[in-house]
Amino acid sequence: MGKCIITLTSDFGSGSPYVAAMKGSILSIAPGATIIDLTHDVPPQDIRRGAIALAGTAESFPAGTIHLAVVDPGVGTERCLVYALIGGHHYLAPDNGLLDGLARKRAPDKIIALTNSEFWQAEISSTFHGRDILAPVAAHLSQGVAAERMGDVLDELAHLEWSEVRVLGKTIEGTIESIDSFGNLITNISEELLGDVPRDDTVRIVCDDHETTGIFTTYGEQPPMTLLAVIGSGGMLELAIVDESAATMLSVKVGTNVTVTW
Amino acid sequence: MGKCIITLTSDFGSGSPYVAAMKGSILSIAPGATIIDLTHDVPPQDIRRGAIALAGTAESFPAGTIHLAVVDPGVGTERCLVYALIGGHHYLAPDNGLLDGLARKRAPDKIIALTNSEFWQAEISSTFHGRDILAPVAAHLSQGVAAERMGDVLDELAHLEWSEVRVLGKTIEGTIESIDSFGNLITNISEELLGDVPRDDTVRIVCDDHETTGIFTTYGEQPPMTLLAVIGSGGMLELAIVDESAATMLSVKVGTNVTVTW
Amino acid sequence: MGKCIITLTSDFGSGSPYVAAMKGSILSIAPGATIIDLTHDVPPQDIRRGAIALAGTAESFPAGTIHLAVVDPGVGTERCLVYALIGGHHYLAPDNGLLDGLARKRAPDKIIALTNSEFWQAEISSTFHGRDILAPVAAHLSQGVAAERMGDVLDELAHLEWSEVRVLGKTIEGTIESIDSFGNLITNISEELLGDVPRDDTVRIVCDDHETTGIFTTYGEQPPMTLLAVIGSGGMLELAIVDESAATMLSVKVGTNVTVTW
Repeated sequence: MGKCIITLTSDFGSGSPYVAAMKGSILSIAPGATIIDLTHDVPPQDIRRGAIALAGTAESFPAGTIHLAVVDPGVGTERCLVYALIGGHHYLAPDNGLLDGLARKRAPDKIIALTNSEFWQAEISSTFHGRDILAPVAAHLSQGVAAERMGDVLDELAHLEWSEVRVLGKTIEGTIESIDSFGNLITNISEELLGDVPRDDTVRIVCDDHETTGIFTTYGEQPPMTLLAVIGSGGMLELAIVDESAATMLSVKVGTNVTVTW
Repeated sequence: MGKCIITLTSDFGSGSPYVAAMKGSILSIAPGATIIDLTHDVPPQDIRRGAIALAGTAESFPAGTIHLAVVDPGVGTERCLVYALIGGHHYLAPDNGLLDGLARKRAPDKIIALTNSEFWQAEISSTFHGRDILAPVAAHLSQGVAAERMGDVLDELAHLEWSEVRVLGKTIEGTIESIDSFGNLITNISEELLGDVPRDDTVRIVCDDHETTGIFTTYGEQPPMTLLAVIGSGGMLELAIVDESAATMLSVKVGTNVTVTW
Repeated sequence: MGKCIITLTSDFGSGSPYVAAMKGSILSIAPGATIIDLTHDVPPQDIRRGAIALAGTAESFPAGTIHLAVVDPGVGTERCLVYALIGGHHYLAPDNGLLDGLARKRAPDKIIALTNSEFWQAEISSTFHGRDILAPVAAHLSQGVAAERMGDVLDELAHLEWSEVRVLGKTIEGTIESIDSFGNLITNISEELLGDVPRDDTVRIVCDDHETTGIFTTYGEQPPMTLLAVIGSGGMLELAIVDESAATMLSVKVGTNVTVTW
């Protein structure tokens, strides 16, 4: 294997020395690895938000990338750590649903329970398996050790419950699934699902007690301070306020219902 | 071209997965690139603050570095994306003034409009040209593709309006142009402009209704809690409170007037 | 020397362009260096917290790593900049106690005052020695220049005062020394010191007016919202609230007393 990319996702916070500890653990085994932060700003213990971040960003990296993710409220209990091969990318995470955002888009091609301590650090803490198990396993994978050597094959990954998108005649009901750093409200309604839905002002989007008409292609098509709907860069319907934070101005939170009617 | 450095500047926020998406896009084409975050904490949509961050930091990197910058309120509208060669460094950005902090210090040697989609991602979103256009263009440049192949030559970059520094006899009038993470207030009055101005207590610096006398060389020359003026690490006059945040304690914001008299 | 790792620790804040300026300064001399952020979220000017972050994380990196640390309230005054070799790792920092968290665990094998300006930037500001002195020295060290060439041998590093842990019969008295990004309260009481202390509910841990019994091995062993004591990933006794921030819920700050009795 040539120069290998390893991404890191966690709920440790961007400035946390725990992130550096994982990098040190990787570089102790694979000093030439290219390590990239996917994000460390997953809200603490929020597996769903971690799953959404991974599903939205991991595939921006080249096939063959190793993605290590740690949002792990069950650390040290009997929950399993896993390797999964999904769409040509390698994932390492606790088996608590963190990979389910990816796996519900595309079935994993291989799942391995990480049980072979040969590829772990010599001493394992009870509270930081990211540093002590996942990081060294990522490093060994990057150096060409086969995933099969890490443990036994599993049939299935743990699942999360996802709020369904419902299509009822000329109405689509979804929810706000995440909020980005600009305060844009990202729904679980995909461009594909919107298909033939008109984009002009005969389509009405309602979120909580706010509404707007039309689905635009970019933010600049409406004046400042206007609520507008766009298809975001991840291919999902998004509500934004031009030049402002929609999340702050509308006091909308993750989980709020969104309805599209036409 | 040997090992190439690419820096990233944006208003995405330090922990944003959007930053990772740009890195993935670069590494998909140029897996050996060294990618460094210049800053992602430019206030959302604040082109001026982005321009100041770039102008203050880009030249700390070696000549030949590629600097990719995205503060892009006009994404998806008719604003142009550009390449500029300034002082031996390569810059990629929306042509909205983001490069004007650099260009007003030193005239660009080359400006190219990025119009050749051959070097872009296959699919271009309407809302994330940083990932879909600038990142792959940066990657191709890092691999030795000539800037001229990216599009047509332009004569000029977009400009911002900058608050002027005025010298009136024994008075210099400037403004607070940025505030750093320590709360130090950085003015637009340069060490060069101060030239022969005395540094002892015959010089008086007034900012809003606060004042201090003397221009010092470092923070440690005055006792804690004292307001003092120094020449900062970027060569600009700076107001600081020893061991505290001047911005917080004085409630001073970017744009506040500063007067030096002697 | 092969591919060299340089870590950076500072109080500049994670998104600060000052961090990028140090990286640019390093890469200008050592373009192939692997630069990793240890943390930049040390509270401004807080040497003790910087010393704790370094002592807790630096040794996760492979021996031979160069660690550059800047928490430097005395920049530009007569405080010295130093190189220290501790446990096979190289450290560069102002000599203000920032390396004392490491040095009190293990005596330095070599200490050098950085006085030889041959390895500094050509122009030295009075306010940013991290960029102008420490970064180029780190880069030269990474390229194999001997530490001895950087200046004169020193006998001792500056010390901090550390709050003592006291053992009185069946009582251990310590303090909260740091708080991590999950709000876990990390004490200065080590696993080694706890030695034979029982881990069952005959041991009582009191912090401020909060208390809990038993020392657990991981967070998942108690129900949500429960205060529990664990040995953390750094080998120190830690107080946590399951699924919540103990720091926020208990309003406990660094420096609060902790007592273990059995």
